This record gives sequence, structure tokens and C-alpha cells, in this order.
Amino acid sequence: MVKGPFPEFSSHYPLLLTTFMQRPIKTYPNEIGVVYRNHITCEYHRFTWIEWYKRTCRLANLLKAFNAKSGKPGKPGDRIATMALNTHRHLELYFAVPCIGATLHPINVRLAIDHITYTINHSGDKIIFVDDVLLPLLESAYDKIKDTVEKFVYMSDKPGLPNTKIENIYEYEELLSQQSDEFEWPYLNEDNYATLCYTTGTTGLPKGAMFTHRALYIFTLHMIAYTSFLNDPTHKALGENNVPMVTTPLFHIHAWGAPFIYTFLAVKMVLPGTFTVDGFCELVQTEKVTSVAVVPTILALLIEYPDIDKYDLSSLISVSVGGGALPLGLKKKVEKKIPGFTASSGYGMTETAPTTIRAFVKKYMRDWPKEKLDEVRVKTGLPMPGLEVEVVDENGNTVPHDSETIGEIVIRGPWVMEKYYKSPKKTADVWYDGWFHTGDLAYVDEEDFIVIADRIKDVIRSGAEMVPTVLLENLSAMADFVLEATVVGVPDEVWGEIPMALVKFVPNSNKVEKDLIDFLTTEGVDKGKITKWMLPKLVAIVDEIPRTSVGKFNKIAIREDLDQFLAKAKDMRKK
Amino acid sequence: MVKGPFPEFSSHYPLLLTTFMQRPIKTYPNEIGVVYRNHITCEYHRFTWIEWYKRTCRLANLLKAFNAKSGKPGKPGDRIATMALNTHRHLELYFAVPCIGATLHPINVRLAIDHITYTINHSGDKIIFVDDVLLPLLESAYDKIKDTVEKFVYMSDKPGLPNTKIENIYEYEELLSQQSDEFEWPYLNEDNYATLCYTTGTTGLPKGAMFTHRALYIFTLHMIAYTSFLNDPTHKALGENNVPMVTTPLFHIHAWGAPFIYTFLAVKMVLPGTFTVDGFCELVQTEKVTSVAVVPTILALLIEYPDIDKYDLSSLISVSVGGGALPLGLKKKVEKKIPGFTASSGYGMTETAPTTIRAFVKKYMRDWPKEKLDEVRVKTGLPMPGLEVEVVDENGNTVPHDSETIGEIVIRGPWVMEKYYKSPKKTADVWYDGWFHTGDLAYVDEEDFIVIADRIKDVIRSGAEMVPTVLLENLSAMADFVLEATVVGVPDEVWGEIPMALVKFVPNSNKVEKDLIDFLTTEGVDKGKITKWMLPKLVAIVDEIPRTSVGKFNKIAIREDLDQFLAKAKDMRKK
Repeated sequence: MVKGPFPEFSSHYPLLLTTFMQRPIKTYPNEIGVVYRNHITCEYHRFTWIEWYKRTCRLANLLKAFNAKSGKPGKPGDRIATMALNTHRHLELYFAVPCIGATLHPINVRLAIDHITYTINHSGDKIIFVDDVLLPLLESAYDKIKDTVEKFVYMSDKPGLPNTKIENIYEYEELLSQQSDEFEWPYLNEDNYATLCYTTGTTGLPKGAMFTHRALYIFTLHMIAYTSFLNDPTHKALGENNVPMVTTPLFHIHAWGAPFIYTFLAVKMVLPGTFTVDGFCELVQTEKVTSVAVVPTILALLIEYPDIDKYDLSSLISVSVGGGALPLGLKKKVEKKIPGFTASSGYGMTETAPTTIRAFVKKYMRDWPKEKLDEVRVKTGLPMPGLEVEVVDENGNTVPHDSETIGEIVIRGPWVMEKYYKSPKKTADVWYDGWFHTGDLAYVDEEDFIVIADRIKDVIRSGAEMVPTVLLENLSAMADFVLEATVVGVPDEVWGEIPMALVKFVPNSNKVEKDLIDFLTTEGVDKGKITKWMLPKLVAIVDEIPRTSVGKFNKIAIREDLDQFLAKAKDMRKK
Repeated sequence: MVKGPFPEFSSHYPLLLTTFMQRPIKTYPNEIGVVYRNHITCEYHRFTWIEWYKRTCRLANLLKAFNAKSGKPGKPGDRIATMALNTHRHLELYFAVPCIGATLHPINVRLAIDHITYTINHSGDKIIFVDDVLLPLLESAYDKIKDTVEKFVYMSDKPGLPNTKIENIYEYEELLSQQSDEFEWPYLNEDNYATLCYTTGTTGLPKGAMFTHRALYIFTLHMIAYTSFLNDPTHKALGENNVPMVTTPLFHIHAWGAPFIYTFLAVKMVLPGTFTVDGFCELVQTEKVTSVAVVPTILALLIEYPDIDKYDLSSLISVSVGGGALPLGLKKKVEKKIPGFTASSGYGMTETAPTTIRAFVKKYMRDWPKEKLDEVRVKTGLPMPGLEVEVVDENGNTVPHDSETIGEIVIRGPWVMEKYYKSPKKTADVWYDGWFHTGDLAYVDEEDFIVIADRIKDVIRSGAEMVPTVLLENLSAMADFVLEATVVGVPDEVWGEIPMALVKFVPNSNKVEKDLIDFLTTEGVDKGKITKWMLPKLVAIVDEIPRTSVGKFNKIAIREDLDQFLAKAKDMRKK
């Protein structure tokens, strides 16, 4: 008998992702936990929690057989990368890799190929697990990464390896079948790095944000506890009865927390491979999906889908929208199709795991009319409980909560990234004076809601004043004839820069450039939300606004192609 | 500009109770957060969150002025004790003391006076904060503790100090009024000891269980997240709209988590001083209380209260019962009075902060008939997610989940106490082989529910067999003519010990001893829940069963007074 105390099993019991796997296999071993639909073959793969867990144990044994080494505090384990869509295999990797002590690098396959090869070499990935549909992408990167990566594992629903120039490539399912389905998970140090997630690098090379088990554990607990705070009745109905479909790619900053949250909640997780409109509708109908979190673009694709009325989408009682303002015209259309629809905004970034600010209906607001509630739900929101979030001026002082004064959002707390991998200088650029600096601008209103105004690098300097482009974009999106709108700065000899709006109208709206300015004047200037000189001086009606790989407006691409848009623009200063 | 990284603000951001105070003052500063009703004067005291917070800041400044010193990992801060009921002041102490780095010792004022003085001297309390109604108790302990305690602070709704022999005594409200209502809370080490809670010492001297900020933070997060798992619709309706009344004393192991959970949830917390039936009913009606957690005794007092029908108790939609089996006769009576009534059991102890096992309705059970659901809700339950809980045999091996094999409950996890204060030997008695040993016996059923069978020290050894008394007690409580029942071992020359039941019948039930045995035979033996030889050999009908200070059956008192009960007992072996 070994006598205690045992701090490692009490006061220092490590906070590990491993814990999240225990609840589903103990509480619901024989319930379906993971549903994956191959978006090409349209075939379904269903796994009970214990089946999924045993596969994850096999994978852990495989990683050990591949000699994947554990890290320690301050030093990541071997980097194991994925080039994969939202499949059960990717979910297996999300747990097996970190829980043996190695570090998961989910490669963002929507990056430019140069950035993909950069992240692989910078990360020093030892093994890459690749989906069959992404093999061509890997092949195009191969020559530049083959000196870094030792092994490749090919993942497919079909048996056999394809013809490929890639050497040292193995077959996932075959390897798994050779391993034991039992595994003794180690009690790692909670400061072990679990994941390495690269930024999309819109302003330069991608940077690698590192997250420890502890950070992700605390993040997950707070995300789940947060639903206990919510006053929205749709959210209340969820909990264990939730059937979420994970449309956010698992290679985008932990799919906003989905793999950890839903595994711990032990709810049936629906994985669509990649988003397709028909796959989305079919999965909602077949699996009785109750909730999704999507970017506005997906909603636009959905309502344009001619066959949408053929599906029964009535199970869907919570549709949260993040990653951009929701245009009112789009919102109204979606509400007709999906009765349970709720728009609610959130704010986060790769460096913050990601969630930091979320829409929130305060309890004294809960009887407000729907229109007014919807306004609250898209006001970006309140800091996540457990984080410190401030909006500060250039001297680091908190700005007054007056709906006017714009400052930079700074954050600190237990799930904010400590440092970029191998980049002390880049780390020091964002971490100074005890705060992580987001580079995003916002004001704070009288009820303490934080409203995003702009990226620092996107802000338009017009004369001595600053034009907050995101504010203008969100305001434009409120017009029911606008499908999407963005605002960029255009060089101007007099003012330095002037704001140009790029706008896509609702089909057959019969509106013109002046209607946008009139709307912004009535709803913005007259109501005190913006000042007159902030109004766009140029308006270009376009068929499509360029977007980045994560669905945000791509202002770099717009600036690179500026002449094309200027040619379409109408100068609103001319009478 | 100081360049980062700053691990203390990111990956090692400390998990502190301080964080829980931030949400209410930021989200609902001007909403009523704390309501205290003086159970003697019947006067109400209402505080908005910001008012309560400012008082807590004043208290923190006072503690600093009193030179209360912070601790460090492995070494507690100055021990600051309370002899106090459930008041706003006690809640102020619950945050101000730990959040300046000192250690809170909430004295269990229901202990025997010798045990009270023992815990004060063992803890080495530097200051005691005492409620006016508890001053006589303090005075009776004074001579034995005055060499330990430096200062006393008298807390009362009325101004002025009473005549007392106690020296160095100050007035709480007067001291607070002299302090600033702003305080810069320190970023403590999360391993600082926040609380020191003594066991009730039924088997010897009380032992001091210590809890760090980290342990209580993780405990609270899991408790809140747990409500997201629940399938019970009554619980779903709560969240931020909950108005809990805290009837569990704050001097009983963190009042089951109430101060931390409800402050972080920022819900209106109703504090009744101490429990009285009229105060309870009045507070439910006045404050529209929605939830309470109580021991069965309180329910018995409530339904015997002749004026209960004069009150509107309709707001009360969740009544959870813990700390003992709920007799079916009592349950039926309460259901008539309180329609939203839910019985649900839980299990925990001082050393586990306290919650470790809780009733849980699995999702595939949610459409079961109410009777069957109620059975699930009182089956003790499932381990709290985030803890490891096992039932093991004498060799430390997990017992089969067969509803039969009894073993000891062992636990480990982030909110289990690491050690008793200044008692390495007692620590080693409970912590060995990597597990905390609870001393409680249970079996596990086929659906993995843990069912408490007995305390190891209370188990009856009859011949070569073991009679699990808690099982018998819970089964007896299922009879609708039983108000309460307990079972103890009585020395016997043949068998070593034989089981004797002490039972209190429902008034005017017209039942006799044999009816209990008949019931246990039909519902227990015939249904395979117990074996025939486990049936009580003696049955004593009593007016009252002795209880401990926390409302549990006091088997030590019964054994000390055994002759009196034996005189009342009928031998059921005689035909």
C-alpha cells in the first residue's frame, strides 16, 4: 500500500482533453456518437461512442508504434498534422494525438499552397494524415515538404492505396486494424501542448498559436457553462438533447470548440465532410439536427438552393451565425425557411482558441420584442465569463462606455495563447504590458456591449479622422435590399483615403447606389450611429465580394484589384 | 512598454474565486443580488451586486488593516474564521477572505462545544467574525480559545457592541464604514488555500480539509456545466432566471457550492439566516424563490407547518433533496403542497468540496413514467463528469456492475482534498494507492449507477455476512406509512450482530412492526433487492430518531442509548 497524499490525483490533478472522452463512453457507450456522411459518395458512417473510442485507442497505439513522442511543458511533442475535412477520422486524431502527449497541427487546407508548405516546414510535422480528396493538394506540396515529413497516412472510406509519387505512405484503416483497441492514456502534464493552429496570415506569413491541454480544458468548461447563463429559450432546449452538425472545418481553430464541447456533452455529432447544400439539408433531415453554427455565406448558399423546400428542416431550432455581420435581407429570407433561426454574433481569433466575446441577451431584456432582441444578438456582445476583455486607447486606458470612443480590444485569461511557436518577436508584437493585443478596434456601448468597428490595418484614415469600416458594413447589412457589403479605403489626394463601399444587392431589388447612401443617412447619420463624413464617397455595385479562406471579406484582394472596382464605382459626391 | 509573453496572464492565468465576483458586477451591477432576511427580527436587507461588492471591497481593506497575511502554495494564509449563519455578511467573508490570500475557516457552530474549541485552536484562527445570535456560543468557548484568537468582530443588524467578557472585539459595520469601497484584488497563486473546512468528527476529532482556489474554481465550473447535461425540464428552466434560497448552512462545506455557483451565475441569492418554517414560506412568496436544495428533515418540518397553505409557494419549481433517503410517505405529502417538487439524490463529503455523485436521468430515460423516473432520481447516481469515481474491493479492483457486489467508493480528481491540515497520519489513512478512500460502501447497478449501501463503520456483521444498513433504510423509506427509518447493529451471542430497525410511522397510520417486515419482504426480498437474512430481527417504533448536526441519523447516539431502544423493540423472530 502506497500512502499519500497524491497531489497529482487531487489538487494538481491535470486538466487534460483525455477527461472529455470518459463521459460518453461511461454514460452512453452504445448510443450513436459520431455520424459522418461522405459528401462525394453520399454514404453514411455511424459509430457508437464505444466504437469511436476503440478506434481512437487503436490510433493511439499506432502513434506509439510510429514512435510519436510526448512533449513537456514549454516544449511541444512531435507535431502530427492533418489535411482533413470533418470526418470521424479527424475527430479520432483530435483526441488520440494530444492525449498521447503529441501536438496536433490541423493544416488549413484553404491557405495558398506556399503558406501550406510554410506551416508544415515551420511546424516540423513528423507525420501527415491526409484525406483521399486532399491527396492532390498534398502531392502539389510534396517536393517542398518531403525533407520534413517522415510518414504519410492516407485516409479513405475505400480500401487500398492510390498511385502517388508520395513515399512512405500508409493506409489508415489497415494500420488501425493491426492495433489493439485498448489503450492506457497517460496522466500528462496539463501544460503539454495539445494543438498548434496557424493564423490565416492575411498580413504576412501564418503564425503558429499553441494551446495547452489546460487552456483547452478551461475553454471547454467555460463554453459549456456559458449555456447555463443564456436566457434564449432555444438554447435551453439543447444540452444533452442537442444534435449539432459541425460545419465549421476542424482545421479552423478547433472548429470553434466543437470536438471538445460535444464529446464532453456526449451528444450525437454530425460531420458533413465539407459543406455542401444538399448534404446539409439531407443531414438535417436524416439525423434530426437541432443546431448549427455557420458563417453568413453558408446561409446565402442555402436559400439560393432550389431544392431546399424538399427537405424537412423542422428539427433545426438553433442556427447561430458567426464570423461576420448578418445582412437583414438574408436574415429575413432564412427565417422563412428555418423557423427556429437565431442570429447571434461572436468574436474570436486563432490566438484565443477562439471564443472571447459572444452575443448575450441580459435577463431584463428577455421580454423585449423580437426585432429589438435580434439587434442585441448581433451587437457582438459581452466578454466570455472567465476572461478579461477591455477596449483601450493608445495609452492602455479603458475607453469610456459611450458608444463612440473607439479603442483596441485587448484580452487576457486562461485560454489566450501564450506565444507563437518559434516566433518570440511576433509574440512580443501582440503581447505587451500584460495584455494580448488583438489588432481589432471596437467601441463599448452604455450597456457594456462591445461592438467591433474595424481591424486596425483596415481602418480608413480620412483627413484627421478615422472611418470604422466594419461599423459601416454592419449598418449596410441592415438594409433589406443588401445581400452583402464591405468598405475599403481608396487613396485620395485631398483626404489621404476615402471610403469606398462594395455592395451586392438582393436580386431584382431595383435599387441603385444612392439608395445605399440614403439608407446609411437615415439609419446611421440621423440616428447618431455614424457621422456624415463617414459616409462612403464611392459605391460600387458588384456581383461578388472577394472572401478569404475563412469566409471573411478579403480586403487585401480588393486592394490588389482596386482598379477593377474603381471602374465600377460611382462617385456619390457628384450631384 | 513591457514586452511579453506573459504566462501569468495566459497559459498560467490563475484560477481564482476572485473571477466569480467579476460577472455579476459587470453584467448586473444594479440588479438585486443578495437578499438576507433576519429570521428573528423578520427584517429584509437587499443589496444590488455592486452594493454587495463594495461592501466586500471594504471588508478586504479591513482585513489588510488587520494585517491578515496571504499564504502561498503548501502553506495557508492567516486563518480567518466565521461563526455565522446565512447572511450577506457571511457571503462577503466567503469572497474577501480567500481573495486577499487568507484562508477562510467557517466554524460549524452545531458541533459540540469541545469540538468547536478544538477546531479553532487546531486551525489557529487569527480573527473570528461572529453573528450576534452566536455570541453566547462564542462566550462559552472563549476561555479555551482566547490565547489563540487575536481579534473578534461582532456582526449585527443593530449598531453598537453588547456587554461581553470578550476582549478585543470590534463592530463589523462600523469598521466597514471606515474603509474604502475600492480594492485592487491580487493575482494570487491558484494553489493558495482558500478554505479550511472541518469534518463533523462523528468518529473522533474533526479533521481539517483544505481547498485551494484552483480546486474550488474547477469544482464550480463543473457544477455549472453539469446543468447543461441535465435532461430534467425543471432544471432547464433555471439558469440565469433561477432564484435560489440557500438553506444549507454556509458553515457546511461551502453550502454545497452555493456561494461560488450563484455568484458566478449572478442570480439573486436568498439567504434566510437560519432555516425556520415561517421564514422559508415567507421568503419563497416574497422573493419568488424558484429552487432550494434541502435535507429530508426540512421537508418534514415544512409539511407539518399548519400555516403552509397561507403562502403562495407556486414559484418553487425545483426542490432537490440531498443528505439522506427521501421517505415515500413524506414525498407524496410534499408533492401535494409543492407541485414542482423533484427529489434527487447526491453524494459527497467534506473532503470532496463536496459533490462527487449526483442523480442523473439518462437521455433514453426521459420519457419514462414519473414513478420510474423518481426511482432513478433517488438512486444516488452517476459520478460528476470530471472526477474519477470507482467502487472497489479490498484489493483495489473495480467490483462488477451487478447490483450485488458491495465495495468501497474511492475518488480522485481536481476538487478532492489533497490533505488534512497538520495531520499527515490521518491523510495517509484515507489517501493510499492513488485514491481517496471515502469509507462508504456501495454497489453499482447494470446501468452504472452507484447506490450507497453503508458507512464502513456502520455495516452490520451478522454471521459471515454483511448487512448493508443504508440499503435497508432506503427500502423502508419507500413504504408510504414510514416517515423515517434507520437500522443499527445490536450485539448478539449467536450471530455477532443482528439488525435492529428504528422506525417512525406516519401519524394515524395504524401500522405495526410486522407491517414493516411484510413490506421489506414483498418489496425487498421478493424483488431480489435484499436477501431474507438481511431482514431486521428487531423493530422499535419510536417518536424520534436521533440525528447529527448535519441531519444524518446519529448511530453513535443510538448505540450509546441502546438499552432504551431495545426496551421498545419487538423481536420479529418470535412467531
